Amino acid sequence: MSLDLFFDPKSVAVVGASRQKGKVGREIVVGLVSGGFPGKIFPVNPNAEEVEGLPCHPDLKSIGTVPDLVVIVVPPKFVASVMKECAAVGVKAAIVITAGFKEIGAEGRQLEDTVMQIARRAGIRVVGPNCLGIMVPGRKLNASFGGDLPAIGGVGYVSQSGALLIAILDMARANDIGFSTMISIGNKSDVDELEIMSALGQDDQTSVVAGYLESITDGDRFVRQMEKISQDKPVLLIKSGGTGAGARAASSHTGSLAGNETAYEVIFDRAGIIRCDSVRTQFDYAQAFVHQPLPPGRRVAVITNAGGPGIMTADAIERKGLTFARLTDETIARLTENLPSAANVNNPIDVLGDALHDRYEFALDVVLSDPGVDAVIVVLTPQAMTDCMETAAAVLRAAKKIPDKTILASFLGGLKIAEAARLLRRGGVPQYDSPESAVTTLRVMCDYVAWRNRPKRVVKLFPVNRRKVEQIIERHLRRGVREIAEMESKEILEAYGFVTPKGMIATSAEQAAGIADQLGYPVVMKIWSPDIIHKSDVGGVKVALNSPQQVMDAFDLMIYRIPKKMPGADIHGVLVQEMCKGGMEVILGMNRDPHFGPLLMFGMGGVTVEVLKDVAFYLAPITAEEARDMLTRTKAYQLLEGVRGQEGVDIAAIAEGIQRLSQLVTAFSEIREMDINPFVVGPEGTTPVAVDARISVEKT
Amino acid sequence: MSLDLFFDPKSVAVVGASRQKGKVGREIVVGLVSGGFPGKIFPVNPNAEEVEGLPCHPDLKSIGTVPDLVVIVVPPKFVASVMKECAAVGVKAAIVITAGFKEIGAEGRQLEDTVMQIARRAGIRVVGPNCLGIMVPGRKLNASFGGDLPAIGGVGYVSQSGALLIAILDMARANDIGFSTMISIGNKSDVDELEIMSALGQDDQTSVVAGYLESITDGDRFVRQMEKISQDKPVLLIKSGGTGAGARAASSHTGSLAGNETAYEVIFDRAGIIRCDSVRTQFDYAQAFVHQPLPPGRRVAVITNAGGPGIMTADAIERKGLTFARLTDETIARLTENLPSAANVNNPIDVLGDALHDRYEFALDVVLSDPGVDAVIVVLTPQAMTDCMETAAAVLRAAKKIPDKTILASFLGGLKIAEAARLLRRGGVPQYDSPESAVTTLRVMCDYVAWRNRPKRVVKLFPVNRRKVEQIIERHLRRGVREIAEMESKEILEAYGFVTPKGMIATSAEQAAGIADQLGYPVVMKIWSPDIIHKSDVGGVKVALNSPQQVMDAFDLMIYRIPKKMPGADIHGVLVQEMCKGGMEVILGMNRDPHFGPLLMFGMGGVTVEVLKDVAFYLAPITAEEARDMLTRTKAYQLLEGVRGQEGVDIAAIAEGIQRLSQLVTAFSEIREMDINPFVVGPEGTTPVAVDARISVEKT
Repeated sequence: MSLDLFFDPKSVAVVGASRQKGKVGREIVVGLVSGGFPGKIFPVNPNAEEVEGLPCHPDLKSIGTVPDLVVIVVPPKFVASVMKECAAVGVKAAIVITAGFKEIGAEGRQLEDTVMQIARRAGIRVVGPNCLGIMVPGRKLNASFGGDLPAIGGVGYVSQSGALLIAILDMARANDIGFSTMISIGNKSDVDELEIMSALGQDDQTSVVAGYLESITDGDRFVRQMEKISQDKPVLLIKSGGTGAGARAASSHTGSLAGNETAYEVIFDRAGIIRCDSVRTQFDYAQAFVHQPLPPGRRVAVITNAGGPGIMTADAIERKGLTFARLTDETIARLTENLPSAANVNNPIDVLGDALHDRYEFALDVVLSDPGVDAVIVVLTPQAMTDCMETAAAVLRAAKKIPDKTILASFLGGLKIAEAARLLRRGGVPQYDSPESAVTTLRVMCDYVAWRNRPKRVVKLFPVNRRKVEQIIERHLRRGVREIAEMESKEILEAYGFVTPKGMIATSAEQAAGIADQLGYPVVMKIWSPDIIHKSDVGGVKVALNSPQQVMDAFDLMIYRIPKKMPGADIHGVLVQEMCKGGMEVILGMNRDPHFGPLLMFGMGGVTVEVLKDVAFYLAPITAEEARDMLTRTKAYQLLEGVRGQEGVDIAAIAEGIQRLSQLVTAFSEIREMDINPFVVGPEGTTPVAVDARISVEKT
Repeated sequence: MSLDLFFDPKSVAVVGASRQKGKVGREIVVGLVSGGFPGKIFPVNPNAEEVEGLPCHPDLKSIGTVPDLVVIVVPPKFVASVMKECAAVGVKAAIVITAGFKEIGAEGRQLEDTVMQIARRAGIRVVGPNCLGIMVPGRKLNASFGGDLPAIGGVGYVSQSGALLIAILDMARANDIGFSTMISIGNKSDVDELEIMSALGQDDQTSVVAGYLESITDGDRFVRQMEKISQDKPVLLIKSGGTGAGARAASSHTGSLAGNETAYEVIFDRAGIIRCDSVRTQFDYAQAFVHQPLPPGRRVAVITNAGGPGIMTADAIERKGLTFARLTDETIARLTENLPSAANVNNPIDVLGDALHDRYEFALDVVLSDPGVDAVIVVLTPQAMTDCMETAAAVLRAAKKIPDKTILASFLGGLKIAEAARLLRRGGVPQYDSPESAVTTLRVMCDYVAWRNRPKRVVKLFPVNRRKVEQIIERHLRRGVREIAEMESKEILEAYGFVTPKGMIATSAEQAAGIADQLGYPVVMKIWSPDIIHKSDVGGVKVALNSPQQVMDAFDLMIYRIPKKMPGADIHGVLVQEMCKGGMEVILGMNRDPHFGPLLMFGMGGVTVEVLKDVAFYLAPITAEEARDMLTRTKAYQLLEGVRGQEGVDIAAIAEGIQRLSQLVTAFSEIREMDINPFVVGPEGTTPVAVDARISVEKT
């Protein structure tokens, strides 16, 4: 069943309707009546004869027809019996406004479970409990206690906080923001944010999907579904609070580098969701996305009647990484010919303090026709001669003439520009109270365009030895061992096509020298113990050993010294390994977020990864383009390309490593976190080596 | 002479006064009259009998008394003769409103020079030309064409853009921001931003100095003076455009890393100036600084009537690096006892959606008395029961009771909270339309407190051989050589107490081997040519050479290969140098900004400095604390302290290196840029070695 009965009911019953002023049961009926709901409204209350002039029914059954939607506002202890009544008469959609359920603790949770069980059995879809209700201004449906219906507009809003929704409605009224739908989802016991947003994604009246969320019910589905919605419509979300994943103790670098917010950044990035840090920025973005075309490119021109604000806008364009448009000679010639000689005809175009609307309109027409301009920001200060209203009208005319380029306005001031600002906003040219906000909005639009135009995602699958990995992981889980030791970690990597250095465990100095002789010098030696995670911290790593004597010395020193530093450690021997010469050390890793799954990490290797934190995360499974994109997002990327006479490394080989890692962690949800560190990569055409790895597993 | 005649004149003459509507010459007189200026107003115009009911004088002389202040609004070509008249009658202060001077090009510049020459000779101080004028609301002085006087308040504002000032006035009216003074400085031909801001710094009516600047006239004086002002009062500046220094070709790493904005960041940092990126944020900060006490610490409590906005505020507190206050047991007990059981008594304190003003007031009283709370943010959403106005009044009462902690409000909404917001603002509790803005403001206040409490600046002077450096630099300048070659660069460093590696130039392979034998192995070899700046780019650096044979090979290969890569290079030989073993490589550098002087830089050395750009800048001369502070501002700081079993380095020794560098570049303004790279620093107690240096000089 779709959610149509919630958004477009032909009849609504309000159970708990009340005549008493200030009661929510009255507010709901008032909302429906004064909103002009064209369908039937049935107040239900055994103790009232009429509410708001409508005859009151003692119960649902006595209505005589099955209402499409039932709004429940009775006290919490009566909700279950009302739900039973709904089931009995065949209701299919209910909004439970009533609070006092799981948000108040164990007792409430039990009550909520009971109610939802009844609903589920009867196939009743439920919004709430503990919510404000639903508003659909275009259908004159106000099944909420949020006050008057807002203006009709293109924003579909879903909020996990009813109180915030009230503030948003009030702010929207003051800022000419209109809505297609507003839904408060409360405890989202049945209908959740994803279902609502999917419905908004398909709703013709909604051009921007926006919301305020505190939690996400199903991370995996959320990512997949939001990616689809974002492809059609921009999704603007405020997400408060973290996932709590950061609080877990991490045993890998990747785990310790993945902060509380990393998962949200990664999944928003992947799904094309535009994150907003306040309602104000959400409105800033929303009005542009609703009313303006997406910018065809990043080249911005500025038209202003004052130098200072022009420079401020230019500064913001540079700071935000947009391109300051270069006007064509033709544009400059036309501007020069028609503007006063003191005007600046180069971007930012200064039409001067005495400019009337005609000068603005002319400049705007000319600049919008310039093929080198993708977007224009119109800046105005209300000087003595300035005709704010006429200028606003001129901007709207110009915008109509050339509807395929983005136009944003920043009329600066307070009372003097208030009316013009309203005219602009209502006419579809978003108005910002600072040029910085206009530029930030434009940048967000450009990023959305880039995301929408990203190449089609094709995740490459490599031939691997899956069975081998399964066996190792199963063995560990059976024995309750979480950390997979180095030798078996390497077997896992080899099974997924990684090349690892040759090496063997020695249990005596002589054996170590023998292995080294076989491998050839120089060699690396590492203490081998399941209890020692950070080997170098305890002197458990020696590199560049060049002779049997050095190998034997290193063995004996480790075996003698390390137990003193870590008395309890179970030491199995010392790994003697061929030494990787040359190449650059990077780190590949994965940390599994409890909600969203495997977050892949790339960074420069060595001790610096933890200190400089120059790393990039992305959600698995990953495509080749996305893997390469991860690399370019680190500052160290230049080092990979080669700088200052130093040769670059095989970037495609690193990207392949990330893809193989992605395939491994996607296949095995038991892998909780892992590092391949260092992953040593050489010049183009060489095969990188996974020198060391740390993998931890847990039952799923 | 102080600027008193501008801010507190007893009489004002307006030369160019006009009766014609829309003329600036009329606006000025209207401004003075309708503003209620208590002193005498003398319109001057030979062609009018009266203006705005005041008798008009044909010229200044015929007034019969010398006006304290003359406002000049005649066309540009007449300004010089008016200025002569001013000189003749003994006027000492003039505002030239008229535009059409140096801002329009060469012709205007000449006109301006003429006018200013007359003024200078006669000892007349001039504000302008090309400005809006001056407003001092507290004295009912409106000598401007900016419209009505703004409200009286604590903000002293100086703007280099008159048009922006008009917008600011209009925005201020809508946002209840009051001003002590507003000055448009225009072309600032005489009175500049620094003089005005110094005057505002000493003005009792001004508690916040704010401004919009496009250029800074005297960088050096600016820094010193602003540091003094900031010590007393916060300085809030919008600075648009860069210094242009970044555009110069740089020959050092430091030069290429110092961006266009670096100098401003550094000097604002040093002088305690708070940089604002828009008028909106400037207002956000100004209202808090004017009305609220500085926060005694960073521990913030939140009181809210809705969970969602409470979490959003908490998120912002974490993001902005403030501390989420932990309430004492006593506070929690008192809250628990008096608030409803469903209320959240831990920070953020949720007084619930049905809270009236009394619940807010109680919670605010209790939380403000908690010794663990330095500041409180009051968040409100206008729900059904909410009494916005009464709550605003309650907040004001609580703020009065405990006046030593910072209280900011964020009432969320539009029309429903508009009146309450006004009540709050007018009552001295700043109101923000998003919690994020309140938190950002609080962070800025905390940073200002930290800056004010910084230790006293004492620049240490080391005993050095100044004469030696003077000789080297003089010799280079005489010969027109800008780059000081390696050997002499090291002499300079040694003269300032740096230790450099031993080494000599070899001109033959055999000589090279001989030098290496003397120094002891391993050695480093570097091509020695004034034409080769980036030696490693052309294979001109070889390290870890261990035998006479390796040294001879390296010599011959360089001499053979490098001329092929750089055919024109003048090669003097090869430097053979002892090799620095161990230690960490950092870079110390300096880039001289044309306006503000020597910017010192610190960063991690090697090829990574350019790629990761993990560097910190500071203005010389520097103190020991500031030098250490530079180190901590880099991400690599942890590496210096030692991580993962790796020993740390002598941090004080690096700080001393920075101070010595500071002393050198302060003493010699001929040094335009320099790098000490690498500066190799070992464990505590060891002496760092300046392995390589690049110094470029120019005539000053």
